[in-house]
Amino acid sequence: MNTTNVSGHVNGLSDIVQNDLEMSSLHKVSVRPPESMMHSIKDSVKETFFPDDPFKQFKNQPRKRKLLLGVRYIFPILEWAPRYSFKFFRSDLIADSSFVPPLVYAILGSSRDIAIGGVAITSLILASALEKEVSHTQNPELYLHLALSATFLAGIFQAIMGIFRLGFIIDFLSHATLIGFMAGAAVVVSLQQLKGFLGLKEFTKKTDIVSVMRSVWKQTDKWKWETIVIGIAFLCFLLITRHISKKKPKLFWISAAAPLTTIIIGTLLVLSTHLEKHGVQIIGNLKSGLNPVTVNDLVLNGKHLKAIIKIGLIISIITITEGVAIGRTFALIKKYHIDGNKEMIAMGMMNMIGPCFSCYMTTGIFSRTAVNFNAGCKTAVSNIVMSIAVMLTLLFLTSLFHYTPLVALSSIITSAMLGLIDIQGAHHLWKVDKVDFLVAMAAFVGVVFGNIEIGLAVAVTISVLRVILHVSRPHTAVLGNIPNTTIYRNTEQYPDAKRVPGILILRIDGPIYFSNSSYLRERIMRWIDDEEERKDNGNTSQYVILDMAPVTTIDTSGIKMLEELKRTVEIKGLQLVLSNPGSDLMEKLQKARLIEILGENWIFLTISEAVKVCCSLLNSRKLNGEMNIDNDDQGGG
Amino acid sequence: MNTTNVSGHVNGLSDIVQNDLEMSSLHKVSVRPPESMMHSIKDSVKETFFPDDPFKQFKNQPRKRKLLLGVRYIFPILEWAPRYSFKFFRSDLIADSSFVPPLVYAILGSSRDIAIGGVAITSLILASALEKEVSHTQNPELYLHLALSATFLAGIFQAIMGIFRLGFIIDFLSHATLIGFMAGAAVVVSLQQLKGFLGLKEFTKKTDIVSVMRSVWKQTDKWKWETIVIGIAFLCFLLITRHISKKKPKLFWISAAAPLTTIIIGTLLVLSTHLEKHGVQIIGNLKSGLNPVTVNDLVLNGKHLKAIIKIGLIISIITITEGVAIGRTFALIKKYHIDGNKEMIAMGMMNMIGPCFSCYMTTGIFSRTAVNFNAGCKTAVSNIVMSIAVMLTLLFLTSLFHYTPLVALSSIITSAMLGLIDIQGAHHLWKVDKVDFLVAMAAFVGVVFGNIEIGLAVAVTISVLRVILHVSRPHTAVLGNIPNTTIYRNTEQYPDAKRVPGILILRIDGPIYFSNSSYLRERIMRWIDDEEERKDNGNTSQYVILDMAPVTTIDTSGIKMLEELKRTVEIKGLQLVLSNPGSDLMEKLQKARLIEILGENWIFLTISEAVKVCCSLLNSRKLNGEMNIDNDDQGGG
Repeated sequence: MNTTNVSGHVNGLSDIVQNDLEMSSLHKVSVRPPESMMHSIKDSVKETFFPDDPFKQFKNQPRKRKLLLGVRYIFPILEWAPRYSFKFFRSDLIADSSFVPPLVYAILGSSRDIAIGGVAITSLILASALEKEVSHTQNPELYLHLALSATFLAGIFQAIMGIFRLGFIIDFLSHATLIGFMAGAAVVVSLQQLKGFLGLKEFTKKTDIVSVMRSVWKQTDKWKWETIVIGIAFLCFLLITRHISKKKPKLFWISAAAPLTTIIIGTLLVLSTHLEKHGVQIIGNLKSGLNPVTVNDLVLNGKHLKAIIKIGLIISIITITEGVAIGRTFALIKKYHIDGNKEMIAMGMMNMIGPCFSCYMTTGIFSRTAVNFNAGCKTAVSNIVMSIAVMLTLLFLTSLFHYTPLVALSSIITSAMLGLIDIQGAHHLWKVDKVDFLVAMAAFVGVVFGNIEIGLAVAVTISVLRVILHVSRPHTAVLGNIPNTTIYRNTEQYPDAKRVPGILILRIDGPIYFSNSSYLRERIMRWIDDEEERKDNGNTSQYVILDMAPVTTIDTSGIKMLEELKRTVEIKGLQLVLSNPGSDLMEKLQKARLIEILGENWIFLTISEAVKVCCSLLNSRKLNGEMNIDNDDQGGG
Repeated sequence: MNTTNVSGHVNGLSDIVQNDLEMSSLHKVSVRPPESMMHSIKDSVKETFFPDDPFKQFKNQPRKRKLLLGVRYIFPILEWAPRYSFKFFRSDLIADSSFVPPLVYAILGSSRDIAIGGVAITSLILASALEKEVSHTQNPELYLHLALSATFLAGIFQAIMGIFRLGFIIDFLSHATLIGFMAGAAVVVSLQQLKGFLGLKEFTKKTDIVSVMRSVWKQTDKWKWETIVIGIAFLCFLLITRHISKKKPKLFWISAAAPLTTIIIGTLLVLSTHLEKHGVQIIGNLKSGLNPVTVNDLVLNGKHLKAIIKIGLIISIITITEGVAIGRTFALIKKYHIDGNKEMIAMGMMNMIGPCFSCYMTTGIFSRTAVNFNAGCKTAVSNIVMSIAVMLTLLFLTSLFHYTPLVALSSIITSAMLGLIDIQGAHHLWKVDKVDFLVAMAAFVGVVFGNIEIGLAVAVTISVLRVILHVSRPHTAVLGNIPNTTIYRNTEQYPDAKRVPGILILRIDGPIYFSNSSYLRERIMRWIDDEEERKDNGNTSQYVILDMAPVTTIDTSGIKMLEELKRTVEIKGLQLVLSNPGSDLMEKLQKARLIEILGENWIFLTISEAVKVCCSLLNSRKLNGEMNIDNDDQGGG
């Protein structure tokens, strides 16, 4: 019965239109020429995994050049090395001079004496996972070997993820997440420095603010006023020098040189006054010598294999997220981009080679990166300078740091951390986008009160939920005609836009999916009901035009919904009209044979053409005096 | 430096445009009048949780009518009861006559003698969760009480979810998921019937196809040829009657009466030939009498409380998903809609009252619903008729079923199940939407080889991932002008559409979010590079127009991206132009002060107006002989 109804309409349409309007002025909606399935799969794989088209540069190049480009792609050092100048080197060297203390920290970190944020968190995960497998007090050698093996496997997993182009996963760390994450991590790392500031010998291994504050308040009797005074003095010095450099960019070297100055002054102070005898902790003796080769100690078989594969998988994912989060954070500040896939491969290689030389899980270390950044390092040479510095330090210079007070290091790190809390950025988020502000706050609170993983997980979950919710509850708008034009726009955004009598024009703002198709049906029916209420004195709408321009895609649930909508609208005596469906939508409608149900003549290229036809039909009906409205009781089916 | 650049452009723009074009013909893009935060929160809460506007009917009604409508909303029976006619009753009665066997099954089900799909799965979850708490052999009474208490709590949780309007969660069960789920569940339930068909006494309690087939093949020596012959004969009878009813809808009563006929013939056959002595299993003695009142047995405190709260929460979520999945499946076939919130409240009440009368966890039972559906029941009266029938059966008629062979019940259920596998529907999915087909297959394979939860979880995950992926990799299209119009459309969909020389028009199909902003920047730059390659003999584009019509929203990551894009495009000597930004986008751009950076004059209402201005600027430049293209080395910043 409904079909008869439609064809009746359509016959009427062509009769009248052929007389009143030039039918030739109407444009047909095209369907994109069909693609083979293989082709469309290839296309979507390309857009998903290779959006940056990494092989483009290889096209139409001689084989030799191709090889060179390929090697450069894998080793970015070859890209920037030839362009590296002395000016850059100066910046890197200054940056690295202040890199020495965190380096010493990093070495000490493995002896679990002093903990720095990033390292501490990764260590804690690895340790808590390994402890279930083997006790580190009962079998320290096996424990160490398993830690190295898990690191090695984690490296393999990271490299595999990079090779399989799963780097797009890191896109899910949004700008807002990073602002919150950065501030949270800065607070956590600063809190750890309380150990140095207060001169405490024992400290909690947890990183959340509650545990740290409890640990600090329990030991009020052990606070050392000497370290507190020195620490605050150093911190003020560092903050003031940074403030000067910020105000006058020409004096950047003041803030760059401040950390090294702090170290030297601190060491001299201890040497001259022997404060170490008054309870000020110093770095003390360091074991010198290079890392022993441990490649033969890797345990990649036997009964522990399953456990270390699991541990390796977990820590590879966690450290890659952390490492990339840190990398992206600083890239955001300095406005360059990080290729997630390359990053994963690099980290993977690092963790595959590291365990062969007694190094366990490494990732971007937040505090180190921050100090580096604050000192203004320019390229990856800083890492090379650093490595050489570490080697030299390990071999010859360890004794020089013997009298460096720990509080000097704490003040350098805290000062770097305080510079990372982006209050302005958070205010910008609040002003522009409340949900993004919520995401940032969630990341911050999660990191400070829980740990880095909780913070990141909560922030990413909120971000993703927001996307899903946006798709599940798409916006719909009533459109009106902007006077003296053929333009139709949202009547809320453009109050001048006038509704067309007898025609309800709705725009659906987004793809139609299973998760929103029920909602859209309800919402469209509500618009129709509202319209009927608005003009309850007989002058009801007779046409519902759906502007499909923003409907980028549809699934089978959405198609079902359109089919039902057509039926429901028809029972109400209205005609459903589509305007400007995109290529994907038209393709699906055609495949589902819905075009026949909707009526090909009721699909228009533009709203203005749809309105033109509907208006002329309305007028001709009025003239003929035939109010051909279908009755409510017609279509019960 | 960049700012100067832009203002230079803009000054040039107004100079030329004011002379050459009527500036008054250009339309300004409006920003929606700002809403208070409370108002916008209220709006999004309403659209998320109350899209059906359930309180609309209460508006402007006298208080008495309001009360009546409220009661009706809570008890849908009052809505349809007054309109219930004898015709409907006849259908319901016929349907319910065939409801007796599954009912008997359901009662037996609790004695764990014969298992039916839905019941078996829910029971298994409850049993496996409870078994960890208390052994049902050692302390059967406590076990029973805990089961009832967990059911009671699950009911409370379900009702709470319904009251807090979380029903929209069930929108995530898509049409495709349901087709796969239905077929999978039909196969699983049919497999369970092999016990009856083969006359086996022992059978696995697992539902996956591998366990069932292994259990069946292990007992080949115990197969009874008598039951196999009877079963196949009954099954053929049922399938043929259904086929007849399908071909001639007038003869619907044939298929409706077939199950009862099967029962009667089967019972008479056993009575006359005493097949039960040859190994054909019969229902046997049933404990008669109504369910005892157990309201005082509920254990809602003590040491088991924490455990049963956890169990209750888990089973409430699982059973609600299952129950609603089943309800939606049949609603889909019969083309009516299920209100998820009401459904949750109803199921919650059912499970809160049930355990007070010895009933444990209930939900929509797949096999029962299917038999009901096949027999053509019309309204909820079928459930009332059923309840009375159960009561009478329990009180008086249990002895009548003593000699009914189990294989008769198995054949009825199998026949109902086979009718539910929608091969045509699956083929339609394959034709229209490959991803939806994948979702359906995942649900099917998950249910058949794993269990119902795995199937649903995998299908929902794929569906959601698809949405996220669509948002993460939005489509972009190059637009061209349809000759002799001011219409611009996708050149792929409309091969007639002509690109405008010197101007690249791109449309971004979807919201700009953190998850796609990196991708979009890459993609747009790729379009620009491609364009430059296309015309490498000097005639490059000078304007990039981004059509923002489908960009329904943007977050702060997206805004950062636009800002960067503007800078990058400018370095290449191109001017970035926006057309038709929506109200949400304009609001965010204004709040982030990006409009000032992009230049208010470079934001147009329509593509056609943007093109008009760009063309006249291009022409005037050509006339003046000034090729004012910015150089690559200008903006290094």
